[in-house]
Amino acid sequence: MAQQRGVAAVTLTIGVDVGGTKVAGGVVDDTGTVLVQTRRDTPADDVGKTRDVIIELVAELSAGHDIQAVGIGAAGWIDASRSTVLFAPNLAWRDEPLRAYVSAAVGLPVIVENDGNVAAWAEFRYGAARHADDSMVMFTIGTGVGGGIVLGGELVRGAHGIAAELGHMLTVPDGHQCGCGRLGCIEQYASGSALVRFARAAARQEPHRAAALLELADGEAEAITGPMVTAAAKGGDPVSAEAFAQVGRWLGTSLADMAQILDPQILVVGGGVIDAGDLLMGPTRRSFTEALAQRSRLPVAEIRPAELGNSAGVIGAADLARRI
Amino acid sequence: MAQQRGVAAVTLTIGVDVGGTKVAGGVVDDTGTVLVQTRRDTPADDVGKTRDVIIELVAELSAGHDIQAVGIGAAGWIDASRSTVLFAPNLAWRDEPLRAYVSAAVGLPVIVENDGNVAAWAEFRYGAARHADDSMVMFTIGTGVGGGIVLGGELVRGAHGIAAELGHMLTVPDGHQCGCGRLGCIEQYASGSALVRFARAAARQEPHRAAALLELADGEAEAITGPMVTAAAKGGDPVSAEAFAQVGRWLGTSLADMAQILDPQILVVGGGVIDAGDLLMGPTRRSFTEALAQRSRLPVAEIRPAELGNSAGVIGAADLARRI
Amino acid sequence: MAQQRGVAAVTLTIGVDVGGTKVAGGVVDDTGTVLVQTRRDTPADDVGKTRDVIIELVAELSAGHDIQAVGIGAAGWIDASRSTVLFAPNLAWRDEPLRAYVSAAVGLPVIVENDGNVAAWAEFRYGAARHADDSMVMFTIGTGVGGGIVLGGELVRGAHGIAAELGHMLTVPDGHQCGCGRLGCIEQYASGSALVRFARAAARQEPHRAAALLELADGEAEAITGPMVTAAAKGGDPVSAEAFAQVGRWLGTSLADMAQILDPQILVVGGGVIDAGDLLMGPTRRSFTEALAQRSRLPVAEIRPAELGNSAGVIGAADLARRI
Amino acid sequence: MAQQRGVAAVTLTIGVDVGGTKVAGGVVDDTGTVLVQTRRDTPADDVGKTRDVIIELVAELSAGHDIQAVGIGAAGWIDASRSTVLFAPNLAWRDEPLRAYVSAAVGLPVIVENDGNVAAWAEFRYGAARHADDSMVMFTIGTGVGGGIVLGGELVRGAHGIAAELGHMLTVPDGHQCGCGRLGCIEQYASGSALVRFARAAARQEPHRAAALLELADGEAEAITGPMVTAAAKGGDPVSAEAFAQVGRWLGTSLADMAQILDPQILVVGGGVIDAGDLLMGPTRRSFTEALAQRSRLPVAEIRPAELGNSAGVIGAADLARRI
Repeated sequence: MAQQRGVAAVTLTIGVDVGGTKVAGGVVDDTGTVLVQTRRDTPADDVGKTRDVIIELVAELSAGHDIQAVGIGAAGWIDASRSTVLFAPNLAWRDEPLRAYVSAAVGLPVIVENDGNVAAWAEFRYGAARHADDSMVMFTIGTGVGGGIVLGGELVRGAHGIAAELGHMLTVPDGHQCGCGRLGCIEQYASGSALVRFARAAARQEPHRAAALLELADGEAEAITGPMVTAAAKGGDPVSAEAFAQVGRWLGTSLADMAQILDPQILVVGGGVIDAGDLLMGPTRRSFTEALAQRSRLPVAEIRPAELGNSAGVIGAADLARRI
Repeated sequence: MAQQRGVAAVTLTIGVDVGGTKVAGGVVDDTGTVLVQTRRDTPADDVGKTRDVIIELVAELSAGHDIQAVGIGAAGWIDASRSTVLFAPNLAWRDEPLRAYVSAAVGLPVIVENDGNVAAWAEFRYGAARHADDSMVMFTIGTGVGGGIVLGGELVRGAHGIAAELGHMLTVPDGHQCGCGRLGCIEQYASGSALVRFARAAARQEPHRAAALLELADGEAEAITGPMVTAAAKGGDPVSAEAFAQVGRWLGTSLADMAQILDPQILVVGGGVIDAGDLLMGPTRRSFTEALAQRSRLPVAEIRPAELGNSAGVIGAADLARRI
Repeated sequence: MAQQRGVAAVTLTIGVDVGGTKVAGGVVDDTGTVLVQTRRDTPADDVGKTRDVIIELVAELSAGHDIQAVGIGAAGWIDASRSTVLFAPNLAWRDEPLRAYVSAAVGLPVIVENDGNVAAWAEFRYGAARHADDSMVMFTIGTGVGGGIVLGGELVRGAHGIAAELGHMLTVPDGHQCGCGRLGCIEQYASGSALVRFARAAARQEPHRAAALLELADGEAEAITGPMVTAAAKGGDPVSAEAFAQVGRWLGTSLADMAQILDPQILVVGGGVIDAGDLLMGPTRRSFTEALAQRSRLPVAEIRPAELGNSAGVIGAADLARRI
Repeated sequence: MAQQRGVAAVTLTIGVDVGGTKVAGGVVDDTGTVLVQTRRDTPADDVGKTRDVIIELVAELSAGHDIQAVGIGAAGWIDASRSTVLFAPNLAWRDEPLRAYVSAAVGLPVIVENDGNVAAWAEFRYGAARHADDSMVMFTIGTGVGGGIVLGGELVRGAHGIAAELGHMLTVPDGHQCGCGRLGCIEQYASGSALVRFARAAARQEPHRAAALLELADGEAEAITGPMVTAAAKGGDPVSAEAFAQVGRWLGTSLADMAQILDPQILVVGGGVIDAGDLLMGPTRRSFTEALAQRSRLPVAEIRPAELGNSAGVIGAADLARRI
């Protein structure tokens, strides 16, 4: 009986991670384990079809499981009630009442959350910051820079639902033009696209020195991609290593700002760039330590790489759904 | 009887504000009203004497009042348990167990808190952010830049007690040298000392145009002080107005960063510089709005000047003591 | 006889201006007057064909005129002997011995010169700086930024033929990425492409405010061009005027650097952007004056817009040929 | 007889170097050799006394020599006719007709020249750039940054006599406040005072790591001087070496700008800081090479340390006097 009750007590939720190219979904238990997972292409230009893909995915995953709720993570600004996608840069959604629509269609409670917040929550609960009981700040380094903040054991969502918009902190006044219109956002210095921009520029400037990297790109600097820079850096290419060092230098500075603003228990860095390991984390930690030199006597957060990789979106969204 | 019970229910606490030149103290009731107030000179170089002045002040204020607890605000890093002053830049304290010492001497519960946090708490409870029920961020612009953050109705103190160290966020890479050793901290661009530095430089460059300001300083650019810049700016001096505009430009940028990181209900600006009114707040708001232009559709925190002035330290410390 | 001698004394030269899209040529007399002019498309990808177009053009222009020499201006690095195009960013030439080739084909003395130098020389001899007898510095603002320097009545060509490469002076450390690989060259802040980048960003950020500009571009921020920004700015569009002001702010700063380095008699600004008149020159002069505030007592060069427009290349090249 | 004729053919001139603390003078022959040298304290606050010291010094040096002319080098802006000191930051001179006054008093032709120009001329004729026949640019790194430019074998003096004011080129927009009133002049990043500022800041931040440097300053960061930083850096102190590397990084960038603007045969770095040897020149050359990476195929000026040390002022002024 006791055991049966225990089994009954395992609650399952579904997490959905809506990206610009793929929609991933999974059934997740209360230990953060993904029991089943699936993915589809994102019909990014079509508001209606993206909703339909989410609903199909939830229906498919629900089959044979007793699902309690659904969490959806998406790049964009979500309102304070976690119901409406106010704006999504890579999708066609504008003031989209996603929660109500999906909930009605699948007959389950639904919450919608920003993808940076979702990833941070997953790492806080089950990943790099699982030993922290109170606070963490996470930077997710993709094409752009996303963020998530946990304080007092809860996500910081902001008075209008749009906190942790870390990619657009001002980093270099009058610096590189950002897609948002400003000059010098951190997204132009500590992102995957900055990594590629730095590497391409160096390959154009010093093709001989960048021979190993250029070979991966069939000799075309403009064909260099992030994974190529990572591969070349790991293989000893100096130009690629320097591109990571540039990104790390700026990332470390921003992490130091976070340590001074929020003083969290742990700082986490996620996204594809962390595959480069110490090539990124070494310069990041050096820049961080240097920025905080004067308080070296005082304890400060440790910087850790994220641990959940691409699953963070599904795990975090599912875990947030459990807490509705 | 009812009246007596009413009187008995009023709890009184003492707030002490330890500054570099003055120690101020007051008896404060639970509406944030200061019933009695007093102040002494700070014997800044002498650890023991500063403690003694605090104790004398508390003893004096306690006479004739039923005091429940004592709160002490001081510039410096305070440990997470609000007991020890780890480091105070303008006082001689290093790892000073101030809470235990004062508590033993005065026979009352004591807490110690950073002065920026104390001022923010006062404004959150009884000042410019009293209508906010959840969150605010405050910049206190004095000689340097202090900060305080309230989220979920509580001060954000950080995992190591040193959050809201807003004065040392990086603002201009390789910028003006800060006392902390780094180049380009916000304290070098949006502080009272930056205001004076900008005004003095302009007065040296264009003495004719700065005639009104220079007259206040007996013709000596190096003798210009903050209050002179405020007075001259109010009187129409263009050089002084531009110095405020420079400070406001950087302050607005940092406030925009705070809106993007924490998305609070209200942003508060305090310190002597707000006496300049719109001369400071106008450029601050313009720079803030410009920095957030892309999200202009979305709601964002309002910026308000602080309301409690010099009493914020005493009121905030007393109110925090009530919550021990 | 006297008249014949006079006629005989008029020397005619041909100037050729090799651009990325057009090759223009003209017969020029010793007053800087263009007697005949013609132009062809540039076969930019084909080294040989570009040479042939130059030769055809010279042959055509020579017919019926007694030509003394030929001057060729081209974007690129030219060697110190004015013979070889070392590198031309928009043409296929690499270490191209253009002088020898063209001279052999047309049977006339030939010199090759950098296009920025040619334009500066034309303005010094017959344009905005014709009243200067000794020195001038010119910035040519096109897609990129070119330059030319005259000191002691002669072009400054440098020990290796590559002086006056003004577009790649460092302006914003860690600033916007330049095509040359560095971050923050002046070309990324005071060029026609910077103007367009600033205007597009503002149009994306504040489409409502940029309505007049967007209408010219059929509503597409990415379709905005330089001439559209000029037209909209002249028509009162605030976003376009601000884009010019941004360019002018940086241009004024660089002109101030030139005044401090070389202290020339006149500073000239050329290129299509000067069609905007005071919308560009106003902010440029304000920024220049502000940068030099401390030496306001001392005389400094005047800033003038170029006067010869598109003909500067032909006139300057022809005049340099006269001096072989 | 032959010997007498030989003696008669040697022309001697006097060079005077007027510094903020010392006035040095010497008799110099036409090989740049100083035959006799002497120095006095500068009565810096007193216009008349400084003139008198110069006159006494010339009188003393003239005794027993057949002097042809006198050259005077002084920090400040000198007019185009080399007659009047328009402004001298460290002396009391304002529109001082120094040439006429001294010439009348000593009965010899006199010229007055800016100290940075004088030092550059000495190095061009007899020092680090003596093998150059045409062009060089020199940065003199003292408390501030001075400059001198030689093109076509002549000093570039500018249309108003104030060219080569290299210390106030804009280097970091909104950077460290300069004495001239602007933010971010090169003088705040590549000068002796910047070196000391960087070293003091690092010593305050990391006293343990800067132990060797602090010992030289009796433990007081604020007592650190330039020679201490040099001595400590040579002895292996990492904090001092980093201070030199910071200065070198900015100096290399400015030298690269000069290579792009003027393309001289040689770039020279002078001033007390070059005593540090490769500790300064190594980072300077790396930064220079990196800034010019794209033109690495093309020849560019070599960077050399100055060779004449403190005598450059006397030698250069004397040599300029010979050419009146």
